[in-house]
Formats: sequence, C-alpha cells, structure tokens
Amino acid sequence: MLIEAIKKRRSIRAYRSDAVADELIEEIVRAGQLAPTAHGTGAIEFIVVKDQKVKDALFAVTGQDYVKEVPVIIVPVATEAAMLPVQDLSVACENIFLQATELGLGSVWKNVSPEWEGEVKKILVVPDKARVINLIPLGFSAETPETRAKEALVAEKIHKDRW
Amino acid sequence: MLIEAIKKRRSIRAYRSDAVADELIEEIVRAGQLAPTAHGTGAIEFIVVKDQKVKDALFAVTGQDYVKEVPVIIVPVATEAAMLPVQDLSVACENIFLQATELGLGSVWKNVSPEWEGEVKKILVVPDKARVINLIPLGFSAETPETRAKEALVAEKIHKDRW
Repeated sequence: MLIEAIKKRRSIRAYRSDAVADELIEEIVRAGQLAPTAHGTGAIEFIVVKDQKVKDALFAVTGQDYVKEVPVIIVPVATEAAMLPVQDLSVACENIFLQATELGLGSVWKNVSPEWEGEVKKILVVPDKARVINLIPLGFSAETPETRAKEALVAEKIHKDRW
Repeated sequence: MLIEAIKKRRSIRAYRSDAVADELIEEIVRAGQLAPTAHGTGAIEFIVVKDQKVKDALFAVTGQDYVKEVPVIIVPVATEAAMLPVQDLSVACENIFLQATELGLGSVWKNVSPEWEGEVKKILVVPDKARVINLIPLGFSAETPETRAKEALVAEKIHKDRW
C-alpha cells in the first residue's frame, strides 16, 4: 500500500557497496518520469551516475562520504523548458524516494546549494540554463532507521479554513 | 502498489460536488505530514478549507472555476522554520496527490505565483514569513483522464554518468 511506502521511507546516509540491478534503477527513474510537471512540460531528465570518477568529483564539491561510497547516484535535471524547475524537481524526487523504498532501497535528498550548483553541473556536463538542486544516492541501506514514528496526525499543524 | 498510484495520478480540473469524508481528508493530510523536510524541521502545516466564503475569496485572486466549486482545498504552508520551503512544500504535495489518487480522489497543483502569494496569505491569515506556493483542490473527479500513457521509460531523457 502506498501509505506503507510513505511511512517506511527514511533518509538513508549509509549504504552497502552491493550493486543495484539496472532493472531496479529503471523502475525508480520511471517513477520520477511519471511525476507531474508544471504546464506538463515533462522537462525533467535524469543522470544515472555509476562511474567512480564522477562520484569522487561530486564528493569533492558536496562532501558527505556516501556520495563517493554509494553504488548509484541519480541526478534529476530540469531543462530550460521547465516552468517551475525547483517544484518539478522536488515532486519527481518524492516519487523516486517512494519507489526506492518500495523496492527495498535507500535514498536521501543530498542538497546542492546554489553555491555548488555550477560546479556540480560542470562535472556532469549539464547545460548552462538547466537546474540541478540535489543528488539522490541510491543503494541498499547499511542502517535500519525505524519506520516514521510520526504516524498520527499532528493535529496542531492542521488548520480549519484559516491559519 | 505504489507504481499504480503513480501511474493513475492525473491532474484533475473538474470535480463533483459530493462532500469528501473527514477520514479521507485526514489520511491525505497525514501522507503530506509524513513527507521528508530539509534538515527534518517538519515545518510544513496544512489548512483544510471547506468554507465557501474562503474558497470564493481564493477564486477571486487565483481564478479557475474549480477553486470555488471543489468541496475541499488543502493549502500547504511552510512556516518560517523551513530551510527549503519550496522544496519541502513540493515534496509534501506529491504525497498528497498520490494518497488522494489511492483513495479515489482527484487533485491538482493550482499554482500560487509570487504575485498572488500575499493576497492568498491574507485571505488565509497565514503569518508574513510563511510561504504558500499552491492550492490543492480535493474532490471526486468529474472527468476521467486516462492513466498516464507515458509508462515506458523515455530513454532519451536518461543520461549515463554525464549529460
């Protein structure tokens, strides 16, 4: 059930070195491709990074050991055609997180701040006007965080008709 | 299965007037609450709008007939504590879209552009430093769009190691 994946999804920051089968990667990227985009541009593309040199270069810019250690990094890219690139990228990422969870894989939003974006794009040879806002490491988790405890509605964060 | 909800989700812009049970609304808001937030702030709250006067006022600012006609509008709000408000809101919205789909309801991203944001926040009495980027109408669909045809991977939008 969808809600089970939503509850099970956790941010994973330690990964096993086991390779991830291409079929799994494809199912996860497909979930990202099926996300809605503003004005239906479909202007989100994905880079699937397995090359250790590329991972090392991304690590040198962004830090976090898992960036060089994880078997796969998915990098969502909004092309110049995107009307709301940050929103489109974020929405697609959630599909990726959920589908990874569903398939037994871990992931996390590794943010690419505007200060790093140019360098990350240079490493990945992404066109100038495209946007990259994060890296999504993908691998089998080496940690076992609990299912989200915050299962119940947090009632004080729900407002009726007005704030 | 998660992927079925991802494929079935479509942007719905015509709604039946039937009321939506509070239990369904709660399950959908809960899905939004379980979304990840940057640095784990959990700084996303939700306004559930059913009051016709509020819907009419939102319609007057944003347009789109469904804004006044739909039984419920969920408005995600990022408080001042959010580190990446647009990203957090977008990620939470995708959970809402998917959970609505899972429960047989329709929804759509009705964008609130920066020009309208102040007026929308005033109507909803949202604090000055909080962010609102969209409205999410919620109701039973009065249209029957097909399941996303784009099921297959769009291979040219997937890049290996570099763009």
